[in-house]
Amino acid sequence: MKKVAVIMGSDSDLPVVEKAMKTLDDYGVPYEVHVFSAHRTPVQARDFALNARANGFGALICAAGKAAHLAGAIAANTTLPVIGIPVKSSTLDGLDALLSTVQMPSGIPVATVAIDGAANAALLAIEIIAVTDEALAKKLDDERAKNAENVLAKDKAIAEKYNK
Amino acid sequence: MKKVAVIMGSDSDLPVVEKAMKTLDDYGVPYEVHVFSAHRTPVQARDFALNARANGFGALICAAGKAAHLAGAIAANTTLPVIGIPVKSSTLDGLDALLSTVQMPSGIPVATVAIDGAANAALLAIEIIAVTDEALAKKLDDERAKNAENVLAKDKAIAEKYNK
Amino acid sequence: MKKVAVIMGSDSDLPVVEKAMKTLDDYGVPYEVHVFSAHRTPVQARDFALNARANGFGALICAAGKAAHLAGAIAANTTLPVIGIPVKSSTLDGLDALLSTVQMPSGIPVATVAIDGAANAALLAIEIIAVTDEALAKKLDDERAKNAENVLAKDKAIAEKYNK
Amino acid sequence: MKKVAVIMGSDSDLPVVEKAMKTLDDYGVPYEVHVFSAHRTPVQARDFALNARANGFGALICAAGKAAHLAGAIAANTTLPVIGIPVKSSTLDGLDALLSTVQMPSGIPVATVAIDGAANAALLAIEIIAVTDEALAKKLDDERAKNAENVLAKDKAIAEKYNK
Amino acid sequence: MKKVAVIMGSDSDLPVVEKAMKTLDDYGVPYEVHVFSAHRTPVQARDFALNARANGFGALICAAGKAAHLAGAIAANTTLPVIGIPVKSSTLDGLDALLSTVQMPSGIPVATVAIDGAANAALLAIEIIAVTDEALAKKLDDERAKNAENVLAKDKAIAEKYNK
Amino acid sequence: MKKVAVIMGSDSDLPVVEKAMKTLDDYGVPYEVHVFSAHRTPVQARDFALNARANGFGALICAAGKAAHLAGAIAANTTLPVIGIPVKSSTLDGLDALLSTVQMPSGIPVATVAIDGAANAALLAIEIIAVTDEALAKKLDDERAKNAENVLAKDKAIAEKYNK
Amino acid sequence: MKKVAVIMGSDSDLPVVEKAMKTLDDYGVPYEVHVFSAHRTPVQARDFALNARANGFGALICAAGKAAHLAGAIAANTTLPVIGIPVKSSTLDGLDALLSTVQMPSGIPVATVAIDGAANAALLAIEIIAVTDEALAKKLDDERAKNAENVLAKDKAIAEKYNK
Amino acid sequence: MKKVAVIMGSDSDLPVVEKAMKTLDDYGVPYEVHVFSAHRTPVQARDFALNARANGFGALICAAGKAAHLAGAIAANTTLPVIGIPVKSSTLDGLDALLSTVQMPSGIPVATVAIDGAANAALLAIEIIAVTDEALAKKLDDERAKNAENVLAKDKAIAEKYNK
Repeated sequence: MKKVAVIMGSDSDLPVVEKAMKTLDDYGVPYEVHVFSAHRTPVQARDFALNARANGFGALICAAGKAAHLAGAIAANTTLPVIGIPVKSSTLDGLDALLSTVQMPSGIPVATVAIDGAANAALLAIEIIAVTDEALAKKLDDERAKNAENVLAKDKAIAEKYNK
Repeated sequence: MKKVAVIMGSDSDLPVVEKAMKTLDDYGVPYEVHVFSAHRTPVQARDFALNARANGFGALICAAGKAAHLAGAIAANTTLPVIGIPVKSSTLDGLDALLSTVQMPSGIPVATVAIDGAANAALLAIEIIAVTDEALAKKLDDERAKNAENVLAKDKAIAEKYNK
Repeated sequence: MKKVAVIMGSDSDLPVVEKAMKTLDDYGVPYEVHVFSAHRTPVQARDFALNARANGFGALICAAGKAAHLAGAIAANTTLPVIGIPVKSSTLDGLDALLSTVQMPSGIPVATVAIDGAANAALLAIEIIAVTDEALAKKLDDERAKNAENVLAKDKAIAEKYNK
Repeated sequence: MKKVAVIMGSDSDLPVVEKAMKTLDDYGVPYEVHVFSAHRTPVQARDFALNARANGFGALICAAGKAAHLAGAIAANTTLPVIGIPVKSSTLDGLDALLSTVQMPSGIPVATVAIDGAANAALLAIEIIAVTDEALAKKLDDERAKNAENVLAKDKAIAEKYNK
Repeated sequence: MKKVAVIMGSDSDLPVVEKAMKTLDDYGVPYEVHVFSAHRTPVQARDFALNARANGFGALICAAGKAAHLAGAIAANTTLPVIGIPVKSSTLDGLDALLSTVQMPSGIPVATVAIDGAANAALLAIEIIAVTDEALAKKLDDERAKNAENVLAKDKAIAEKYNK
Repeated sequence: MKKVAVIMGSDSDLPVVEKAMKTLDDYGVPYEVHVFSAHRTPVQARDFALNARANGFGALICAAGKAAHLAGAIAANTTLPVIGIPVKSSTLDGLDALLSTVQMPSGIPVATVAIDGAANAALLAIEIIAVTDEALAKKLDDERAKNAENVLAKDKAIAEKYNK
Repeated sequence: MKKVAVIMGSDSDLPVVEKAMKTLDDYGVPYEVHVFSAHRTPVQARDFALNARANGFGALICAAGKAAHLAGAIAANTTLPVIGIPVKSSTLDGLDALLSTVQMPSGIPVATVAIDGAANAALLAIEIIAVTDEALAKKLDDERAKNAENVLAKDKAIAEKYNK
Repeated sequence: MKKVAVIMGSDSDLPVVEKAMKTLDDYGVPYEVHVFSAHRTPVQARDFALNARANGFGALICAAGKAAHLAGAIAANTTLPVIGIPVKSSTLDGLDALLSTVQMPSGIPVATVAIDGAANAALLAIEIIAVTDEALAKKLDDERAKNAENVLAKDKAIAEKYNK
């Protein structure tokens, strides 16, 4: 199975990114975790991206805040799907990271998820791998069904408690 | 090869979406085009999504403006990767469509690209299919190289004209 | 009397939504409470909306955060008045939910109230039922008069304390 | 049948508001059109609102731009459902009118539709009247079905033209 | 001397508004404090505004949050200078109140100060009265000079502590 | 009668500012027009402000775009009422000028009007002078009445044309 | 004299960037012009930055739109002062480029100027070189004086035409 | 060596500004710290700026919040490079200060860094001085290398802990 990379721009992004690891664990998808900075370790970020396909990766998740260039810097050096997580920092509520991640120029796409949306970033990576992996696709469908049942159970509990 | 679906919420989105078709044509990736509205034809949208994997699709591109629910409505009914293009409409410069597309709740990811970013949506779909298709991956790399050469040629022309 | 539905996209919206229930209780308007997710339980959301008129509902209140599609997904499947409450979540201060709820395309209206404005959502539902219910309309007018008296009492108290 | 009022804050809002009249015409719902300004003719606006229920109105549509106080000023003087249309003016792309209309304080709801969303404002008014008018409700459902067929026809035409 | 009115839309605005009273006290300018709501007590708000000039007022300060219509509603009923304080509430950081207060239509001006800027609202009222009151103008100038000295003292203290 | 100053930060603001002159002409209020830049001619701006009271001015109107510091720079050097007009420029739709003008720190108020709101800036200046000028106050009231009649005439014309 | 680099992310930025060249020409400061893309030609961008100090540059101006990473990508590879010009593109009025350029993480500064502010970017570069170049500093001062005279001339012309 | 000035608009900005002093200390660059207000002590701010070049300064850092005019007011009176730090205050998350600082008109540049970005402001000042100071440039390069090593160490630690 292709691996997923979970890259954060700073180790301060770890609390956000842990939800991505947890989701990948839940699905048994192998992954590597890295701290690469588009600005502080550009060489390593670039080298990782250039070799990612050859090294068995199928999708690269990049989490960064503020002027979040990490996903774009990785995407500039690979044609693997790159998934960007805009991270909320101390000002502007994540809007800066969202626009810096999603408004990529033509030619270099970044698949952007919600601000701090690390679980969805992992799910997107799993969906990408599952395009040609029926067993993994089935797991995704099963999990969706389980989630639906959870919501239905909550609906039942709340309806019983509140309806008049 | 897996097919790509290019779905627009209204035929008024066609001028935006045509750049996605053109890109898919350039790479020889097969695709279907549809007009489904999350609000006006929710049944058809849902049915298409439910059957998309069985029908040979590998990625679904959804373009919509304003309270752009289309990508989310499709993603709610498939575990294939869904790519959202927020479309700029007559007010708010596309910010409404961007937030409506990207801020998805946990469990249902949408891979969001830039406002009106149809070419990148197609490239992302191609990258997803190319994860397990070496020939297509090579085409992507070749195109990147060609783009780089174009930029270098422009750099050369402009440098010659303006440098002092 | 027609019933009101109070639907939340996630049980985490309950603290916001309780103000709607309280208001409906105050006016003696019957209601049902549900947890339906536009993305996790789209079938149930749709079925509820399709049957709402036949089941005696007069207005449907929908509360959701982030890319808040719930009100739109309900409105797509009924021609009853649908009232949307944008819920503030951890980022962007509710602006994402507001734009996702209010910027609906032509043909599928959602009556949007303020961010976290659950009491007003309930009042709007009551106003809708009261269009053809004189007794309920009188209750609304009486309550307005009482509220005005409360403000006047506060004005008197503050004027007495502070005027010089 | 209850009448609908279509009130604009300035006659410059007429091009926006005409779509509401057209929709009401399509459904055969009677209406009155007025120009009342919350700031320039506050007395007339207030008097109209105070007497609207007695004068046979079932819903009041208010369109205004900039610091759009009209819907709130009307809603302050009636417990009929008041529908607000934020109108885009020369700056800020309608965001000022949207926030001025939707962010109403507890006690005085305004049912807000999209910026310049006059057709949906009319539909919402019709939906409100149709809560107790089966024939009108059926017209709304029929129109929805017709709209869906239009979208499906466009889907068919576009799919035939573009699919490969 | 002309009086100043300090009007708040809700007694929850009192903590913001107290800075205005404190400033008026500092300058010995007489004032009245009121709680009037543009939406809950529109009659009283209007009556107060209509009679304000005859009652000896020279400027009216209005503080309100969210869809802050209070200043506009007062300004619609007087040609005295009306000063608006946009109050920050639980969402949107005061931007809604700012736009609802400042974006007034032609003909009905509101002199808007910063979000929660109650001290400046009072100073502006005092400046207005001081246009024809030399003694008060001198007090304003003296206070400015004192403030400047305070800043200079802080500059000196900080420069001594930190300069190298 | 006290004079009004109409100051623009650049002669490109003239088309906006002309509405202020026109309004002052309508009321027969004397005024001076100037081009002073907070950044390009700070000395002249400062000197003008320092001497404005002695030179017979009662209110100073300042129009500027982008990082609009002009009103603040003038207000820093006088305790006369300073009125700020944020001017819309080529980007950001005037939001930059609005925030730069209205968000003044405690101690130095600027009475801010709507983006490009030059007519209201003039009216506010006239209202300030009219605080102690009964004839001018009466003119303001008369004009208000005339405006109301205009709106009522438009209401009548539109109601006649459209009501059904 | 140190050279200035004027780098644009795409040749479509040329109309914006030409104002920078014109300003550098006016001051006789030598410069090179380049088209480097952070995403399409990352290697060339990096190499240019790494060698810029050795090649005699004193400041690097970078203009880019949308998710404008160019200035950051250059700044990541040099400790020369890097000046960023956010370029307005087809959506969001330049806000995306502004936040992507200015919100840089600690350690890698970018000196950001106004959206499309190319003339000021050049002036800033000249000011940087002039820190140790008295003749150039004098030119800057002279130009300032000339600009002030221009404003004063406009003030005189407008005052003569309009004052009453 | 040229000195750096660290100027804050209010002593409440000290916690933000201390990171700038710390960075200047780390590099051994001499500096002066001041509290000057564009509005409360405009004369002192102006005098400092006018004499800064003669007094041996090479760059001036200005930190201010809200309608942050300080950097512009300083830049209006010197042709030394002026660096602006927008400071986040109690409302609007620093967006007001950012726009007030960065959107300067043509002719008077301010080199703006991120909201609360004091460390980068100091680094930018150091980079400016280092343009003609090889030893200081080497220190900057060394620090960059050290920072990169820190990130690489964190990458190693996190990769060891989490990779599977």
